[in-house]
Amino acid sequence: MTVHTFAPTRFYNSLGSHEPALTIGDGDTVVTETIDARGFDRVGRKRGDGPNPMTGPFHVSGAAPGDALRIRIERIAITRPTGWTFQVLSPNVVNPGAVVRFPVRKVTDWVIDTATKKAHLATPPATLRDWSVALEPMIGCFGVAPALGQAISTATSGPYGGNMDYRGFGEGVDVMFPVSVAGGLFFLGDVHAAQSDGEIVGTGIETAAEIQFTVQVVKAKAIGWPRGANKNEIFTIGNARPLDQALQHATTEMLDWLMQDYGLDEVAASHVMGQAVRYDIANVFNPAYSVACRIGRKWLTDLRRD
Amino acid sequence: MTVHTFAPTRFYNSLGSHEPALTIGDGDTVVTETIDARGFDRVGRKRGDGPNPMTGPFHVSGAAPGDALRIRIERIAITRPTGWTFQVLSPNVVNPGAVVRFPVRKVTDWVIDTATKKAHLATPPATLRDWSVALEPMIGCFGVAPALGQAISTATSGPYGGNMDYRGFGEGVDVMFPVSVAGGLFFLGDVHAAQSDGEIVGTGIETAAEIQFTVQVVKAKAIGWPRGANKNEIFTIGNARPLDQALQHATTEMLDWLMQDYGLDEVAASHVMGQAVRYDIANVFNPAYSVACRIGRKWLTDLRRD
Amino acid sequence: MTVHTFAPTRFYNSLGSHEPALTIGDGDTVVTETIDARGFDRVGRKRGDGPNPMTGPFHVSGAAPGDALRIRIERIAITRPTGWTFQVLSPNVVNPGAVVRFPVRKVTDWVIDTATKKAHLATPPATLRDWSVALEPMIGCFGVAPALGQAISTATSGPYGGNMDYRGFGEGVDVMFPVSVAGGLFFLGDVHAAQSDGEIVGTGIETAAEIQFTVQVVKAKAIGWPRGANKNEIFTIGNARPLDQALQHATTEMLDWLMQDYGLDEVAASHVMGQAVRYDIANVFNPAYSVACRIGRKWLTDLRRD
Amino acid sequence: MTVHTFAPTRFYNSLGSHEPALTIGDGDTVVTETIDARGFDRVGRKRGDGPNPMTGPFHVSGAAPGDALRIRIERIAITRPTGWTFQVLSPNVVNPGAVVRFPVRKVTDWVIDTATKKAHLATPPATLRDWSVALEPMIGCFGVAPALGQAISTATSGPYGGNMDYRGFGEGVDVMFPVSVAGGLFFLGDVHAAQSDGEIVGTGIETAAEIQFTVQVVKAKAIGWPRGANKNEIFTIGNARPLDQALQHATTEMLDWLMQDYGLDEVAASHVMGQAVRYDIANVFNPAYSVACRIGRKWLTDLRRD
Repeated sequence: MTVHTFAPTRFYNSLGSHEPALTIGDGDTVVTETIDARGFDRVGRKRGDGPNPMTGPFHVSGAAPGDALRIRIERIAITRPTGWTFQVLSPNVVNPGAVVRFPVRKVTDWVIDTATKKAHLATPPATLRDWSVALEPMIGCFGVAPALGQAISTATSGPYGGNMDYRGFGEGVDVMFPVSVAGGLFFLGDVHAAQSDGEIVGTGIETAAEIQFTVQVVKAKAIGWPRGANKNEIFTIGNARPLDQALQHATTEMLDWLMQDYGLDEVAASHVMGQAVRYDIANVFNPAYSVACRIGRKWLTDLRRD
Repeated sequence: MTVHTFAPTRFYNSLGSHEPALTIGDGDTVVTETIDARGFDRVGRKRGDGPNPMTGPFHVSGAAPGDALRIRIERIAITRPTGWTFQVLSPNVVNPGAVVRFPVRKVTDWVIDTATKKAHLATPPATLRDWSVALEPMIGCFGVAPALGQAISTATSGPYGGNMDYRGFGEGVDVMFPVSVAGGLFFLGDVHAAQSDGEIVGTGIETAAEIQFTVQVVKAKAIGWPRGANKNEIFTIGNARPLDQALQHATTEMLDWLMQDYGLDEVAASHVMGQAVRYDIANVFNPAYSVACRIGRKWLTDLRRD
Repeated sequence: MTVHTFAPTRFYNSLGSHEPALTIGDGDTVVTETIDARGFDRVGRKRGDGPNPMTGPFHVSGAAPGDALRIRIERIAITRPTGWTFQVLSPNVVNPGAVVRFPVRKVTDWVIDTATKKAHLATPPATLRDWSVALEPMIGCFGVAPALGQAISTATSGPYGGNMDYRGFGEGVDVMFPVSVAGGLFFLGDVHAAQSDGEIVGTGIETAAEIQFTVQVVKAKAIGWPRGANKNEIFTIGNARPLDQALQHATTEMLDWLMQDYGLDEVAASHVMGQAVRYDIANVFNPAYSVACRIGRKWLTDLRRD
Repeated sequence: MTVHTFAPTRFYNSLGSHEPALTIGDGDTVVTETIDARGFDRVGRKRGDGPNPMTGPFHVSGAAPGDALRIRIERIAITRPTGWTFQVLSPNVVNPGAVVRFPVRKVTDWVIDTATKKAHLATPPATLRDWSVALEPMIGCFGVAPALGQAISTATSGPYGGNMDYRGFGEGVDVMFPVSVAGGLFFLGDVHAAQSDGEIVGTGIETAAEIQFTVQVVKAKAIGWPRGANKNEIFTIGNARPLDQALQHATTEMLDWLMQDYGLDEVAASHVMGQAVRYDIANVFNPAYSVACRIGRKWLTDLRRD
């Protein structure tokens, strides 16, 4: 159960079977740094290129195809007093043609105050002079090397994780990814100080961070899509376009989970899901959209296994 | 401000310019009855046909095209100790092909206990013997007569409302519909005792109810899609397939709302939405899917109008 | 087998159970007039309103729910020397955001020459001075009254037909619609002098026409979606969004057709379809998109029925 | 203008920056072999793994990012007297739930006769005993290494080409791909003896082939998506889900093409496209669907450039 402090020197724009940056043991903890989506670090130095330069990969001893890699996000500490967003809604989230009303898309700066745990626009329009945003740091892009020797852009996502941009990936979350290569090869980056559902301006408040996480290899755990859990809920993620297909992936994965781990058959699982499921639209901006299918733990406590 | 008690004798399967069942005044309150999605009333008598037989229409004096009709749902009292759902997930919410795992789709009965405010399956599988669902009554289908002299099936929905099957349409909600014909012609029905996001088994717990609502004509209020508000949030609804388009409608309507009523321009509205928006997938079962775009009131209190 | 010459005096903007304009017998032929999508007739007089004002409905004696109504389009004669289109691509057929490159959407006039069977822009840009379009007249919107007492806008389409805007609905085509009400109630209008696949500028060359068609009641023929046939092919139409769902409807209807009328089981029908099917994207502009699933007659001649 | 005869020894399951199998010059011709989608060669020996093992990559001297690589497919000679398909429609091309009617999906063998240029099922159902398919050989999967150092599964496709499964990629076609890495790195494989639109059983008639192609580097030709041409037409390909987005990519690329190479502005290009465009649904089975946007050459001959 070693704690590694890892200072990255190289950043990747794809999740793939790249040279491990560090080999760690099952159960180990890592404290490391992430730079922002365009490659700027905590002091504003450009150290990587967009999209979403990744820290890693971390090779986890003992992880093999057919296993799951469990990551607990223990701390996301924002390390830069600034962030940035786009300033208009993404054209694909409004009615086609409505985009002609918008000014040209550009980057806007934010001030991040970790003392008050708030962020505000550096140069707000008059109407937003008194308006601020509570920090809810989250990881925009993380995951493992995909199958088939693929290396896939950090702009998008898939069964292996990637650029899911989900608000639910904050401090305290436990996430499982399906392992496709020896060591799993875990990458992370693209921290947001806060974000709406859907990442509908095309960014969260993009910034740099220090992250502490702990890994665990779950042997012979064949999952199809990322699974997560926090204090109150379990959830699955589906990544695809359109949202309908992302939802199908997430829903099918939750069905499988309830059947594999909670002893339910198709009918019982359908009954629970037909009352308990809540969906989050994680992002509706990236090449693959992301949908979370959540179930509160309270719905699962009265299930019987005998 | 009259209170009308209305006992329906005829039920409609389309929202259209049908003969008014009752004419009421602006500001009036109505207490009335709804029957379930297949036409059974509080004592289990069949009084209408599916899909979603509607009580109404109510002609509201003074409502004219270009106005909005505001409906406050003050009470939804379930009047029958039974409900029903389907027993397997709808084939369109899981991966294509996964449906071959399911038994044949059929109706299952529920027991509804309004004293304990819980529902449970009448004949549960063993794993669900101790499992119950807290009642959260909601209106599955309501709205006004659509434009162009149309009469549209209560299986689907549109700008005029209809079968949106949104959990958010419970007690205490305020909803605005765009008026397309004189009197608005408001219909309602299809109460669910509870339901997941997405209505993913194809039903909520379908039952009969008594509903109290109050109407208000908002003159010269041209809205594009249903808008709602509760104690904590405002929200808009988009109805379409795929989910992507339903989301576009809801998001564009929220943008319009923030610009019309909160004094924001496109950039300021985008900044607020890019942090504050939460989406609900209301239903992903009906011919038109429904998405809610929500913003917490807390995000709107610090906006400046000067 | 009467031939009726019918001069319409009223035009409808919805397909519904409206008062029959004319009652005709099974096997009868009708010669009638259609006005353009905005309501202008052959001499440019405004006689109806948009969208797509319909001639009809024609009540066909003997047609009852569960039957199919077969319409043979024998002649489409353009009766006006002018037409109109929009002048830029519809925003939904290009990448979101690409629309900002376009000038404001507006109507442009065309000159239609029925002698040379060509159309050209009335005021062409310099690059199109020598450019013209061969006439291929087609019916944009036609169909029967839908089920459930519905009346649905002629802007959209469904199982009953409607605004399908398919190039394949030209002279010589035979089309079957599922009958939902007594008499079927057949409507037609919205003739285009020519059009691309997808109706991607949002219009064909919209004009007025004289149409001759013959009706036939096919008793006890329960079809799910419009079916068509011409000299070389049979085809089915699916209407929905997204295109994926329109394609599912059209493909399923073709599967049913091959099984019902050609003696194939699921496997044999899949083999034929897996080689023979051609798809047309009829329209990708209306609220419901339309996809045609076609099979050449040559693929069906060698099937055995013994 | 060398002619290379290349016998592959290694096959790739991703399009990526792999070690070149052969370096060739601009203008060179290659004669090589492809194995089938599951890795079986002309004599039925297994020499690679699915999905779609690729021959190549071919490094073309002088090709650099920002160029286009033009490939002329001069000959596709089927080299094996057998092929295979699936025997039922893919679940995603029929209405959800219709799939329960189908037997379990499995592989069926075909006999390919290159003398008569026909294929027939090895063990046909009785109804198909006399039924055969004319050979129209095509390349299912080909393209170049994608940008960002990616290596992407040959199951899917993107701007760089990939598994597009388009009937139009037969003998005589000229295709251009956008070059993202030095040498382009061209891959090819997955020949089909014939196929419907949409590849709706999930395969064409999968077989082995000998292919002759000639490469040409088009310097400083920044295209966004594959472009093709044959004797009668030019076309563009968009790859994405849903079909709506694939169509948007293909349509936007055609707009760009007409503006760049044919001297049209947005309005003139829209007029031409609004009459001339034909769409093909290439595949509606793979992770990314593919749509072709075609324009007949006859529509382009009367354009003026002065």
